[in-house]
Amino acid sequence: MAPLVPARLRLGKVVGMPQSHIARLGRAQLRIAEAGADAALITSPANVRYLTGLASSNAAVLVPADGIAVLGTDARYAETAERNCPDVELVVAHEVGPKLARLAAERGCRTLAFEAQEMTVERHADLSALDGRPQLVPLGRVVEQLRMVKDETEIALLARACAITGEAFISVLPSIAPGRRERELAVLLERAMIERGAEAVAFPTIVASGPNGAIPHHSPGERAFAPGDLITVDCGARYGGYHADMTRTVALGEPAAWQREIYELVATAQLAGIAAAIAGADVEDVDATARDIIEAAGHGGHFQQALGHGVGLEVHEAPIIACGRTGILAKRSAITIEPGIHLPGRGGAGIEDTLVVQAGPGPAEILTSVTKELVVL
Amino acid sequence: MAPLVPARLRLGKVVGMPQSHIARLGRAQLRIAEAGADAALITSPANVRYLTGLASSNAAVLVPADGIAVLGTDARYAETAERNCPDVELVVAHEVGPKLARLAAERGCRTLAFEAQEMTVERHADLSALDGRPQLVPLGRVVEQLRMVKDETEIALLARACAITGEAFISVLPSIAPGRRERELAVLLERAMIERGAEAVAFPTIVASGPNGAIPHHSPGERAFAPGDLITVDCGARYGGYHADMTRTVALGEPAAWQREIYELVATAQLAGIAAAIAGADVEDVDATARDIIEAAGHGGHFQQALGHGVGLEVHEAPIIACGRTGILAKRSAITIEPGIHLPGRGGAGIEDTLVVQAGPGPAEILTSVTKELVVL
Repeated sequence: MAPLVPARLRLGKVVGMPQSHIARLGRAQLRIAEAGADAALITSPANVRYLTGLASSNAAVLVPADGIAVLGTDARYAETAERNCPDVELVVAHEVGPKLARLAAERGCRTLAFEAQEMTVERHADLSALDGRPQLVPLGRVVEQLRMVKDETEIALLARACAITGEAFISVLPSIAPGRRERELAVLLERAMIERGAEAVAFPTIVASGPNGAIPHHSPGERAFAPGDLITVDCGARYGGYHADMTRTVALGEPAAWQREIYELVATAQLAGIAAAIAGADVEDVDATARDIIEAAGHGGHFQQALGHGVGLEVHEAPIIACGRTGILAKRSAITIEPGIHLPGRGGAGIEDTLVVQAGPGPAEILTSVTKELVVL
Repeated sequence: MAPLVPARLRLGKVVGMPQSHIARLGRAQLRIAEAGADAALITSPANVRYLTGLASSNAAVLVPADGIAVLGTDARYAETAERNCPDVELVVAHEVGPKLARLAAERGCRTLAFEAQEMTVERHADLSALDGRPQLVPLGRVVEQLRMVKDETEIALLARACAITGEAFISVLPSIAPGRRERELAVLLERAMIERGAEAVAFPTIVASGPNGAIPHHSPGERAFAPGDLITVDCGARYGGYHADMTRTVALGEPAAWQREIYELVATAQLAGIAAAIAGADVEDVDATARDIIEAAGHGGHFQQALGHGVGLEVHEAPIIACGRTGILAKRSAITIEPGIHLPGRGGAGIEDTLVVQAGPGPAEILTSVTKELVVL
């Protein structure tokens, strides 16, 4: 895998980008104009991909409030960009940020918005040192907010990622047996996702068995499953750039009363959270709907995580559904609902779905369709 | 996979970290003192892992010029940090940067160095807004420079990652046949790496066949291999956090004269680059040694990438071995040497090894030991 050195400059043509990218760029331009900027320099890789379709580790897009966007990337990605992103002007350069900022200035841009949540202090200093540069102002999370509302293409990709995840999970259930190690199950599951068409895993698979269930982000290790374990698996496939996120907890042998109790409590809280996830709901209220159930049962201190988060081109994106957060759920936003109970030294249980908030008053569409009855193996 | 919300605060004990982390922290402290800072706030995830052993998406370490380092991470990683990083003081918080900056101020730190190459403008603004905060000064790439020189533990992990990569590559050679698709081979190879003990792939595998060989970072797609193809595979396993990086090009059927010619040219340039990779060599000279051979044969315009790069906890790290770069190769640095020729519309060839520059005058140790004779399948 190679970093790039020399650069070449080329300007592309303006034809035929898939409609969804044109629509996305149009919405971004509206927001950039509303923010009072002449243009925005978008540097977050997920935002660049969302607006142009290009997945690249070195790309940026200059989005004028009015006019044609300019995609900058380096020679490694030039052929791909030329093929897949024909509706933006293409500039090939190594240092894409300064290149596009200079171009903005040449085209009369006086106020250039940038993504302060992504740009490093060092890169900002580089831009600030350019002669005749535009004034730099923070844009805020404008593109992240647009990304909350998924279009049909995105929902189809998410649904496929979730279907692959569910099929793969079910395929490895027969492999869960005493003596099997956490890490082995994680490998089997990741392989099963790839075999079913995942382009990659959405994140490293979590397998937490027995007492390791007390650790929310446990790295699967050499612990062998034993009868009496609850085993929590948090996994997801990536497909077309979109991330599935699903958690299921299964029991190895007949569960003890305390295990069944925390499982049912998590399941009840999860269903309540899903029912509360309607367009217009306050994210803190959605969180509270599920959290109150767990707290009322005396386990508030064992559920320290957010109830859920947005999911799409990133595995964690806006909105975060948690106490202390503000915002309302947008229609057609894709989110997770994932309560869990983690008992130090003993174990834990978690259940998580990826779902799409509906435009109307109906319940959210659940994309991860694996059963949530406690599976006893 | 869950983001975190509430936080709890806890202070850890000071015993028993593996010697290598103590030594690394000690070297960092020397550099921080030399930079005139009272402490440094290290926020780059790879640098945090290097100094403490903790792999976390939300962690930072406060390294005083003198005294005990403080690792900050959130509740998801607290148990892991407590278990694996007993020699640093541990602070559990969600917003680790502001938390550690306040702690630094409380402990009398007046000048706090930060990683401008990693910290975003937004996070820097958050720190700048703290009451009574220390003065913030850029640290530079101090830890990245320390990371260039690998210790024995690191070289062992890299060697294992490279061995897994090579074994996996050889295991899939029989699968390369007419009709097999690029993406299928990539999946087979990634699975083979995981089966042999890789914790993950070091980066998405590149398989570029026939005319796709013209694209240095081609995403493997639906193209089926055909007789007469050169097929370039760029792949690597990750093991213990360390990244292997290897490229091999094979021929499907007897290669044409032009294919054999570019392959031999790349192989000759690659060996020359390896021979030049000795401690104390200027990175630009190493690059030129290989590049001159390709340019002299009239293919300078078809080799647009750097000759190589450092490799370790990140797949691309210091040093970059390229024209226009400055720096000398350190002894015991781990690097790649990876020339390639990419002919637009026709195809290409690339060869890459991961190697360790020796302390003495001898040639570098090549960790990726798969043959570089042209394999004809």
